[in-house]
Amino acid sequence: MTHCPSLCVCVPKECCGQCDGISLGEAVREQHGKDESVHRCCPPDVVVFPRCVEEVSALAKVCHQHHLPIIPFGTGTGLEGGVCAVKGGVCFSLRNMDQVLDLHQEDFDVTVEPGVTRKALNAYLRDTGLWFPVDPGADASLCGMAATNASGTNAVRYGTMRENVINLEVVLANGTIMHTAGKGRRPRKTSAGYNLTNLFVGSEGHLGIITKATLRLYGIPEAMVSAVCSFPSVQDAVDSTVQILQAGVAIARIEFLDDVMIDACNRFSCLSYPVSPTLFLEFHGSEQSLKEQVNTTEDITKSNRGSDFQWAQDAETRNQLWKARHDAWYAALALRPGCKAYATDVCVPLSRLPDIIVETKKDLIENRLTGPIAGHVGDGNFHCLIVVDPKDPEELHRVHLFTERLGRGIIYKLCIFKKNQWRLDQ
Amino acid sequence: MTHCPSLCVCVPKECCGQCDGISLGEAVREQHGKDESVHRCCPPDVVVFPRCVEEVSALAKVCHQHHLPIIPFGTGTGLEGGVCAVKGGVCFSLRNMDQVLDLHQEDFDVTVEPGVTRKALNAYLRDTGLWFPVDPGADASLCGMAATNASGTNAVRYGTMRENVINLEVVLANGTIMHTAGKGRRPRKTSAGYNLTNLFVGSEGHLGIITKATLRLYGIPEAMVSAVCSFPSVQDAVDSTVQILQAGVAIARIEFLDDVMIDACNRFSCLSYPVSPTLFLEFHGSEQSLKEQVNTTEDITKSNRGSDFQWAQDAETRNQLWKARHDAWYAALALRPGCKAYATDVCVPLSRLPDIIVETKKDLIENRLTGPIAGHVGDGNFHCLIVVDPKDPEELHRVHLFTERLGRGIIYKLCIFKKNQWRLDQ
Repeated sequence: MTHCPSLCVCVPKECCGQCDGISLGEAVREQHGKDESVHRCCPPDVVVFPRCVEEVSALAKVCHQHHLPIIPFGTGTGLEGGVCAVKGGVCFSLRNMDQVLDLHQEDFDVTVEPGVTRKALNAYLRDTGLWFPVDPGADASLCGMAATNASGTNAVRYGTMRENVINLEVVLANGTIMHTAGKGRRPRKTSAGYNLTNLFVGSEGHLGIITKATLRLYGIPEAMVSAVCSFPSVQDAVDSTVQILQAGVAIARIEFLDDVMIDACNRFSCLSYPVSPTLFLEFHGSEQSLKEQVNTTEDITKSNRGSDFQWAQDAETRNQLWKARHDAWYAALALRPGCKAYATDVCVPLSRLPDIIVETKKDLIENRLTGPIAGHVGDGNFHCLIVVDPKDPEELHRVHLFTERLGRGIIYKLCIFKKNQWRLDQ
Repeated sequence: MTHCPSLCVCVPKECCGQCDGISLGEAVREQHGKDESVHRCCPPDVVVFPRCVEEVSALAKVCHQHHLPIIPFGTGTGLEGGVCAVKGGVCFSLRNMDQVLDLHQEDFDVTVEPGVTRKALNAYLRDTGLWFPVDPGADASLCGMAATNASGTNAVRYGTMRENVINLEVVLANGTIMHTAGKGRRPRKTSAGYNLTNLFVGSEGHLGIITKATLRLYGIPEAMVSAVCSFPSVQDAVDSTVQILQAGVAIARIEFLDDVMIDACNRFSCLSYPVSPTLFLEFHGSEQSLKEQVNTTEDITKSNRGSDFQWAQDAETRNQLWKARHDAWYAALALRPGCKAYATDVCVPLSRLPDIIVETKKDLIENRLTGPIAGHVGDGNFHCLIVVDPKDPEELHRVHLFTERLGRGIIYKLCIFKKNQWRLDQ
């Protein structure tokens, strides 16, 4: 794959006039027309690889003049088909804009270009004692994470992208370059003007192309420890979660996996956890505060019939544990080779979580669906990953009806889909 | 003051047709045309006192039809003249909508009407073990705090209103009633649709009238302790702040008062703190974690030539201490009886804070201005409260030039005004 040679001259004054003629091979277009979701590939008409914001702006102007849809593309690790070019158009792959800019260690902030991924940033920060904790599992681009308001396993302690983006450079559809919090600004808080930063965070590329993000960083905690705890029932595991949070434990991660999901993870990642509802936990803090957090948490899990904790203290064992959790998507897929996974993303008030997970599992069983459940339960947020044969229209129909019940509140009134995910176009 | 008798029939089907005729006495209009700022009173043409969202909506429709400006009014405790009816119009006093609705203790959230103040909510929550920590000092209405994105002394630990509003019910200019996160929703996190909640938080009443706010609550910490520490120089005090935060101490409040401000507070609140740059600190947590936090903090302040801590442990002494801090506005005013205070609100990156405060003080002295400084320095945010004789145009001019230098970056490039505060119309 090579850059279109005309691209670098697509800045307004030097425009070669041949922008309409840019085309790339089918393989490249196919590669940019899908992510990791069940949704069928919708390739764009063209893929461009701008190298700076001025090129993004110039290309956006051309698209605007010709009424061409624009689809920003980071790493293609999305699970909801956001990059599918459903009406064709121009895909802006931002992978060539991959510089970490303006690290301010003493102010705990950094600015990154859109090709910088989460892992690349943390590798860059390795010797600074700082890290960026938002972790959706995939090694997504940070600007893509901003565009989709990514969250993940650390959100219960560190928040989602919403709480961690300080400023964005954005190219609007007509090519205008704007800075949501003012050019070069990086305020910890502001009340000057509308909160445009958070209007763009989670806007899924509808409002513009994010070409720079200024992010909040955190000190790497003095100590971290992870643990796994099994429970005889879903209710016990989720009740424990609610009580741990109500007790004010500043837990860093608390992830639920139901029996189907832990079984899938055992098989996929060669683990041997008991096949029953499970919590993966992580604690961050000073050595002293860790002891306090762990004691309170153990008291609660034991009172809810939880097993003894299985510990992961050193970085390698902890990484293995969380890799297994983050591979849940692939573990689910491996349950039925040849099938595809259909993600759902539901957030409910914490107090309703036990009932809702129990009801969801009942619904899945009654409707003969394979739907392992993994959840950021500390936020009341869970994913039911439905593994479905894309060639079986009857099964697809059952999945469709299930997601409708889940999302539209036929099962229960309070549940909220985090994203619109009813399109099942394959 | 009585309600306009025609108000209750101003719902569309029963409209009395006399809405234009609503008027209230001059005293009531005067009272609603100013807040606690230096800005001159601009009374509205009319003040209305709706009792429910339907009345707010019906009144907004009438105003919309007649092209009348609408000014929402909470408690009038603002410091920036936001309630001044600069073009006349209809003031919507929301004090009669004062119910606390839908407390969900187990989910740590509550919904309030716009007449509920911060202190009223915390009094209501007294027996639940929960509290709402955002504390701008004044007993402001919570929906007013949302409209202005209030922050205050606790923001370094608990965030501003932005981080603590979950949903808003809003009446738009044309009377449409909308819910920014969906009717009845109270998700801890969401990626469904644009983040309209945070578009309205801090929108200063421009986008609509907030008629309900769903807020995040917190467990009251097991233990709290406050302390006061004096320093030989501004640089030492602010350096300490930066280092405390960089050390990862989860401090709940860290407030800076310069020598002029501490002197004013001593006089106003009958205290006897040394007249030198001072930090007011507060720690929240378990008994054990408090010890750790305090030890780290004391090590840092001592290494920056700070005094021994003066402690305030019991609730009453702590309240006295924070009342003195929150009365800083009135303490500043009392420095020059008959004068008015002009608030500024600047937020800068933490690393720039020491230099910027030192430079600001120099500028004030060179320009013969009385400007005690108090700051939520943990966020890089400080207020210089300029006490000015509103009848002295030459002094007003000097204040105006100072605020321009402060805000437009003539003194330094990185400073950011939190709000637009250049109007000095008196």
